[in-house]
Amino acid sequence: MLHAPGDIRVEERDEPRIEQPTDAILRLTATCVCGSDLWPYRGIEAVNGPAPMGHEYVGIVEEVGAEVTIVKPGQFVIGSFFASDNTCEICRAGYQSSCVQRQPVGALGAQAQRLRVPLADGTLVATPDMPADELVPSLLAASDVLGTGWFGAVAAEVGPGKTVAVVGDGAVGLLAVLAASRLGAERIIVFSRHEARQRLAREFGATDVVTERGDEGVARIKDLIGGLGAHSVIEAVGTQESMMQAIRSTRPGGHVGFVGVAHGVELPGQELFRSHVHLHGGPAPVRRFLPELIDLICDRQLDPGKVFDLELPLDQAAEGYRAMDERRAIKTLLRP
Amino acid sequence: MLHAPGDIRVEERDEPRIEQPTDAILRLTATCVCGSDLWPYRGIEAVNGPAPMGHEYVGIVEEVGAEVTIVKPGQFVIGSFFASDNTCEICRAGYQSSCVQRQPVGALGAQAQRLRVPLADGTLVATPDMPADELVPSLLAASDVLGTGWFGAVAAEVGPGKTVAVVGDGAVGLLAVLAASRLGAERIIVFSRHEARQRLAREFGATDVVTERGDEGVARIKDLIGGLGAHSVIEAVGTQESMMQAIRSTRPGGHVGFVGVAHGVELPGQELFRSHVHLHGGPAPVRRFLPELIDLICDRQLDPGKVFDLELPLDQAAEGYRAMDERRAIKTLLRP
Repeated sequence: MLHAPGDIRVEERDEPRIEQPTDAILRLTATCVCGSDLWPYRGIEAVNGPAPMGHEYVGIVEEVGAEVTIVKPGQFVIGSFFASDNTCEICRAGYQSSCVQRQPVGALGAQAQRLRVPLADGTLVATPDMPADELVPSLLAASDVLGTGWFGAVAAEVGPGKTVAVVGDGAVGLLAVLAASRLGAERIIVFSRHEARQRLAREFGATDVVTERGDEGVARIKDLIGGLGAHSVIEAVGTQESMMQAIRSTRPGGHVGFVGVAHGVELPGQELFRSHVHLHGGPAPVRRFLPELIDLICDRQLDPGKVFDLELPLDQAAEGYRAMDERRAIKTLLRP
Repeated sequence: MLHAPGDIRVEERDEPRIEQPTDAILRLTATCVCGSDLWPYRGIEAVNGPAPMGHEYVGIVEEVGAEVTIVKPGQFVIGSFFASDNTCEICRAGYQSSCVQRQPVGALGAQAQRLRVPLADGTLVATPDMPADELVPSLLAASDVLGTGWFGAVAAEVGPGKTVAVVGDGAVGLLAVLAASRLGAERIIVFSRHEARQRLAREFGATDVVTERGDEGVARIKDLIGGLGAHSVIEAVGTQESMMQAIRSTRPGGHVGFVGVAHGVELPGQELFRSHVHLHGGPAPVRRFLPELIDLICDRQLDPGKVFDLELPLDQAAEGYRAMDERRAIKTLLRP
């Protein structure tokens, strides 16, 4: 529970129970702290505390409502930060995070032992078998940061032969590098000044690291790739500076995929008009990608769980937040 | 020549001559006044006058430079508002209006009897034969307003089965309706309060007209098509209100193609993030579409010339501007 900026407490709450016939109750195997949890933790977003926190989760289905027919008790499942029916016109077009029935899971608090998941059949995807414990961090990464980085790469139209730049070296940025690599990018340039993150980016497939920022960073990228800017740029921060850096790093006709939650961003229309870039992004429809990502992880072809460089029991959640806030940890996994 | 806001004069100027070996000199058959010419005419854009005006032109090649090999004297040709080499990486990707060598033709002034066109081989496209005089208005429309409306429709990913909305009932908006119809849209809704423009929009293929604007217009569109917003929205005005109307009229996952030259537009990042729309636009790469559009016009399958509802001799250019400024005319054709 977040009581006020910087004030995370682990408390006893009422056990979740089936409220709607489409609900499921999960016993969580793992959960984690998201970069976006740091916005209210830092007081940049308003805190209407005490507020339950967390929207990333994997676990075992304990109970389902009367109308749940696909998800079964005993299954190991992954969901994401919006519950969605997966049947409406918007879901079928692949935008489950804008589902007409969507419900934010974060409001329920996934940094917990148990979680009620609405619209269970549309929201949860089960693994083929009970996964080995060493796969749990990677499956948990699929719940948000991998799915979000993947959407960023898809929104930026990453593909074979493309030059890709990634703005942001947090978990989402790093996993956007992994996604770009998997999607066949020819060259992947990451903006980072942090040695451990640079190392992980290279492990995930980055070919170049740029330490300059803002317009200097833009000039450096253009220098590296022959003057024209990247074909595809993934923005994974959400500030005015990062958005402008992403747009300016993209060549005319190229694509910006923006997945950093926008805070205080105002895009100048005239510059956007002249830039000729494609702009697409928003809250990732992680559900669209979950079946494919779960398969790749279970086949041990992707190891996104490497972004977790700190693992703590749930009752030390406050330290997990502190470590990320101070950039001592990229991402904290919490074991309930 | 524009001397100051509202002050258009027809004057004697030096005859244009070949300056670069890649230039061509055209004797213009027709030229016209663009909606974007009204920005400086109205004083909304700064006037560094006296400034030559006009960037839409068709005519006969009189002379070519030593390095021009494709375009030949005697041909009837159409060009657009940016000269482009049509060979660089950006041109080959279809973004000739961001060509690495691009030059604005408007600075040379196409509202004239003769015009020097730089990079002639990359910029000009010849008709198969000398066109009949009644085809001239339609070929002139291809020089900018048809090509721009077409790009808006392509940028908005208009296609069969799609519901399309068009913000703006000027020549570009009306021709975006024509483009959407030709590209197979199922339903085409145009925002317009002007009866003659509504009529032409319907002639070009609009199925519905919405007279409400802003958020009321958005509500009306959603009402008409079942609550979700259009798949594709073309923005052809360039103001804050029109951009927001376009974004808000689009369903999550849908596409906004914006071709109205942006003036004083600031896009709120958070709303854009949550909207899940695709955003693409800018100065239309008309050159990309010219060969196809010329064929369609010469085969009499498209009649975009209907947007010209006023034709004047060039020496009455001032009246042509006035009529458009006062919305008495949609678009003025000038005969040199």
